[in-house]
Amino acid sequence: MMELYTDSSPNGFKATIALAELGLPYRLRHVRIEQGEHRLPAFLALNPHGRIPVLVDHDTGISVFESAAILLYLAEKTGRLLPAQPQQRWAAITWLQFHAASMGPMLGQRVHFEIAEGGANAAAMAHFRQLSEAALTTMDGRLADNAYLAGDEYSIADIASFGWLHIAQLVGFDFSAWPHVGAWYARVEARPAVQLGITLPAPATGA
Amino acid sequence: MMELYTDSSPNGFKATIALAELGLPYRLRHVRIEQGEHRLPAFLALNPHGRIPVLVDHDTGISVFESAAILLYLAEKTGRLLPAQPQQRWAAITWLQFHAASMGPMLGQRVHFEIAEGGANAAAMAHFRQLSEAALTTMDGRLADNAYLAGDEYSIADIASFGWLHIAQLVGFDFSAWPHVGAWYARVEARPAVQLGITLPAPATGA
Ligand SMILES: N[C@@H](CCC(=O)N[C@@H](CS)C(=O)NCC(=O)O)C(=O)O
Ligand SMILES: N[C@@H](CCC(=O)N[C@@H](CS)C(=O)NCC(=O)O)C(=O)O
Repeated sequence: MMELYTDSSPNGFKATIALAELGLPYRLRHVRIEQGEHRLPAFLALNPHGRIPVLVDHDTGISVFESAAILLYLAEKTGRLLPAQPQQRWAAITWLQFHAASMGPMLGQRVHFEIAEGGANAAAMAHFRQLSEAALTTMDGRLADNAYLAGDEYSIADIASFGWLHIAQLVGFDFSAWPHVGAWYARVEARPAVQLGITLPAPATGA
Repeated sequence: MMELYTDSSPNGFKATIALAELGLPYRLRHVRIEQGEHRLPAFLALNPHGRIPVLVDHDTGISVFESAAILLYLAEKTGRLLPAQPQQRWAAITWLQFHAASMGPMLGQRVHFEIAEGGANAAAMAHFRQLSEAALTTMDGRLADNAYLAGDEYSIADIASFGWLHIAQLVGFDFSAWPHVGAWYARVEARPAVQLGITLPAPATGA
C-alpha cells in the first residue's frame, strides 16, 4: 500500500492525477498547509523541507518527496506514463524537468508577488510575470507541433505542467496569448483521471 | 560521440563534472551567453528556452536539455552515479529534484536580486535570501547524518548541488552557518573530476 501526503495545491495535484491515471490504490493523508500541519515533526520526518507532496511506498520501503521525483517513481514502478520509445522517453523527462526547474518555480514566485503580496513589489511582480511568460512561450512552441509535451503520448511531463497551470488558471493568470497551451490544457483537463485528481484531497478554490 | 553545449555557469558545471566523473569522450561546444550565442537560431533548435546545458548523443539520436535531465540521462546510459540499492537510488533522485526545483531556482533568483541588481530591490533580495537559506538548512540537516545526499554514495544529486554552490561561493554567499554543507563541499571539491569539470569550458570568475 502507498500513502500520499498532500494538500489541494499545484504540486499536490500532480501526484493525485498520476495516481488516478494509474488506478493505483493508496491512502490519502491530508496535510493542511493553512493549519501549519506541514511544519509538524511527524511530517518533517518525511520531508525535512516541509513541503507536500510526499509519497511513502510501504511495499518497497521507499519514501519520495519533490513532485517530479514522485512522478518518475510512479512511472518506473508501473512502466506507464513515460513513452517506451527512447527519444520520446527522454523528451518526456526533459519537459518534466523543464516544468520542475524552469516553469513551476517561476509560476510559484509570480503567485507570491502578484497574488499573495497583491503586486506591492511592482518590479519583482513584473520580473516573474516576464519569466513565467517566457516559459509559457517555450511550452507553446513545443505544443504547436506536438499534441503532448513528449510528442504523441501523454506522459508525466503533461501531468506536472497541468498541475501547476490548473492553479495558475484558477488564480486568474491569462493564458489566451498562448493558444497551443490553451488547446493542450483543454485536452488534458478532459481526462477523467485529471478531473478526479484535481478534487483530491479537496478541490482548489484559488483562495 | 556526444556533444555538450555549455558555458562556465552553475548549470553547465553539473554536466562537465558528470562527464569528467564518467570519463566519457565528448565534444565541448562553448555557447557564450555574454555574447548572446544562446539566442541564435541554431542553439534555439536544441533548446527552445535558450538555456545551457544541452547534451546531444549522436550514438542514440537523443538530445536532452535541463541539467537534471542530462544527469539522469548520463546515469542511465552508464549505470553509474546513481546507487543501485533502491532506497538510496530514490534518495538520490529525490535530492537531485530538491536541488533542481527547490534550491537552484532560489539561488538563481538570489544572484539576480543580490548580485546582478546589487540589492536595489531590498524586499525581493531578502525574500530570496530567506528561501535559499531555508534550502541550505534542509540540505545541512541531510548532510549531518550522511556523507552524501543519497547516503553513503556520491551521486548526481551531489554533482547538481555542487555545480550551483560553487558559483554561489564564488559570488560571495556566506555558507559558514551550515557546517555540514561546508564539509560536504570540501569533500566533493577534492575530487579530480570536479576540479576538471569546473574549468570547462573555462573557469568561472564570479563576474
Ligand atoms: N519543488 C517542490 C515544491 C513543493 C511545494 O512547494 N509544495 C507546496 C504546496 S504546492 C508546499 O508544501 N508549500 C508549503 C510551504 O511552502 O510552506 C515539488 O515539486 O514538490
Ligand atoms: N533549469 C535549467 C536552468 C538552465 C539555465 O538557467 N542556464 C543558464 C546558465 S547556468 C543560462 O543558459 N542562462 C542564459 C539565460 O538565462 O538567458 C537547468 O537546470 O539546466
